[in-house]
Amino acid sequence: MRALTWDGAALRVEDRPEPVAAEGMAVVDVHLAGVCATDVQIVRGYMGFHGVLGHEVVGTVQEGPEAWLGKRVTAEINFACGRCAMCARGLGRHCPGRTVMGILGADGAMAERVAVPVANLHAVPEGLSDEAAVFAEPLAAAFEILEQVHVRPRTRVLVLGDGKLGLLCAQVLHQAGAEVLVVGRHEDKLALLRARGIDAVLASAWSGEPAEVVVEATGSPQGFLAAVRATLPRGTLVLKSTFAARPEVDLAPLVVNEITLVGSRCGSFPPALRALAAGSVDVLPLISARVPLARADEALRLAQQPGVLKVLVTQ
Amino acid sequence: MRALTWDGAALRVEDRPEPVAAEGMAVVDVHLAGVCATDVQIVRGYMGFHGVLGHEVVGTVQEGPEAWLGKRVTAEINFACGRCAMCARGLGRHCPGRTVMGILGADGAMAERVAVPVANLHAVPEGLSDEAAVFAEPLAAAFEILEQVHVRPRTRVLVLGDGKLGLLCAQVLHQAGAEVLVVGRHEDKLALLRARGIDAVLASAWSGEPAEVVVEATGSPQGFLAAVRATLPRGTLVLKSTFAARPEVDLAPLVVNEITLVGSRCGSFPPALRALAAGSVDVLPLISARVPLARADEALRLAQQPGVLKVLVTQ
Ligand SMILES: [Zn+2]
Ligand SMILES: [Zn+2]
Repeated sequence: MRALTWDGAALRVEDRPEPVAAEGMAVVDVHLAGVCATDVQIVRGYMGFHGVLGHEVVGTVQEGPEAWLGKRVTAEINFACGRCAMCARGLGRHCPGRTVMGILGADGAMAERVAVPVANLHAVPEGLSDEAAVFAEPLAAAFEILEQVHVRPRTRVLVLGDGKLGLLCAQVLHQAGAEVLVVGRHEDKLALLRARGIDAVLASAWSGEPAEVVVEATGSPQGFLAAVRATLPRGTLVLKSTFAARPEVDLAPLVVNEITLVGSRCGSFPPALRALAAGSVDVLPLISARVPLARADEALRLAQQPGVLKVLVTQ
Repeated sequence: MRALTWDGAALRVEDRPEPVAAEGMAVVDVHLAGVCATDVQIVRGYMGFHGVLGHEVVGTVQEGPEAWLGKRVTAEINFACGRCAMCARGLGRHCPGRTVMGILGADGAMAERVAVPVANLHAVPEGLSDEAAVFAEPLAAAFEILEQVHVRPRTRVLVLGDGKLGLLCAQVLHQAGAEVLVVGRHEDKLALLRARGIDAVLASAWSGEPAEVVVEATGSPQGFLAAVRATLPRGTLVLKSTFAARPEVDLAPLVVNEITLVGSRCGSFPPALRALAAGSVDVLPLISARVPLARADEALRLAQQPGVLKVLVTQ
């Protein structure tokens, strides 16, 4: 089958062996795969991953348990052992023995087909389009903030960054009832938020007033420093970005101002699928381009261009 | 009056003007002042403070409102404005307009007398010795962990560091019911903990098994890195140390493992005074030396020697 691979040196659309549905696994016929900032980081060396890229997927189950055959699905990306202490606590996303689709030891979804554990499958609700459902993974990562931090309706939240992650986090926090302000650099993206009733300002026009909860979604070391300054004493700073580069920061202001820094990564899919089905989060305006699998290497290059949001790899 | 001053270049016991009890202030006749790691950091440049050092104090009110005259007291160190949003939330310790006794814009207690806001006074319970009461401030900083983090009786807590702060944090967490293990470098200090039923091992003998809650109390950048490694995914890392040096750290493991990093500084005094009065925390074995005010510069030098715990400045 055709797949987009990264071997540490080159991105290549090439022929790869068909995935097999081993015990406990299913093979999904891929409809769409999304390009994520993590894919871009991988191509810059993050995780040292070699193999088929892609961890945002929607498709149809082609092989696996009969109950799933022919079902339209999306899939959680952490393939857990199911037997360790983390797994017993329902935290398979942190299983020390995990592989991660398209990121760590498991081939990804920028391919014709992908193998995933049956336990990771989620049925896509009837009436939810493929193009919306493929956002389940990044949207789940945004919902993860609400798993980790008690965001109250009266909480003032500042989201720094108007990339994909910032736009999704802002919407999730807004629909949870919080008073959200997004600070970004792209008038057109901020307009998407304002259309949903979310306050959004250009960085150049921002007052700099600190907030109780700040979400760092710029992905830059400078963004992190700005986020520390923008967090009220005793406030919470949510760190959503991983970097290939290693930003180095001074921790003293965190101690002096008793700031809680919350590292936040992947989330579980059900809240994301519910929000997509209910339409309480708007993802379709985030799609910047669709690129067929045969030219998926271009999709990754495109995703790195300034102002580009979600790029989808089609079949 | 006699006082220990730091002018940015030299530590000196010298003659200073008597403090005055302005509106809302009291003058405390100092019985004892404790030397803290922060004092040592100040002499290395931290906060750029110049003036009389010392922020751990027990004494008798000499001037001020009649109700306080002659009372034996200790005093909270953050002198808040009482009018801002932080103060309204009961977080005067984070008042942006605050001065801090012996640390920021206010003379400290390594002197014959010190001026403090009446609002900062706490009566020392009858029967509690001066030498125990002078630990109210550092013990309150240890209790601050329980204000910020929900430490359950079933929580496994790892305390890295067997200095004053580590020994106090370990005792506070232990008396709160948690399963505490302290990793340190001094057999004699670890023995103090074991005598109270707290597990304690030398770093060389430690298994390295990670825990749900980790308290970084080594004050070293290497200690911080060890603490990150020792925190379970989704766990909490409490950062208790401030540094004059600026340790620089890689934040990626915090995101990948979704670790919550909690900066923790000063606490409020009542829980500390209650624990001291009840004897549920043992502080007297932490006293390494007593030095009279006339030689208080020696007290600071002594406090920097390896293995030395609390040094008290007497009159
Ligand atoms: Zn596992
Ligand atoms: Zn104030």
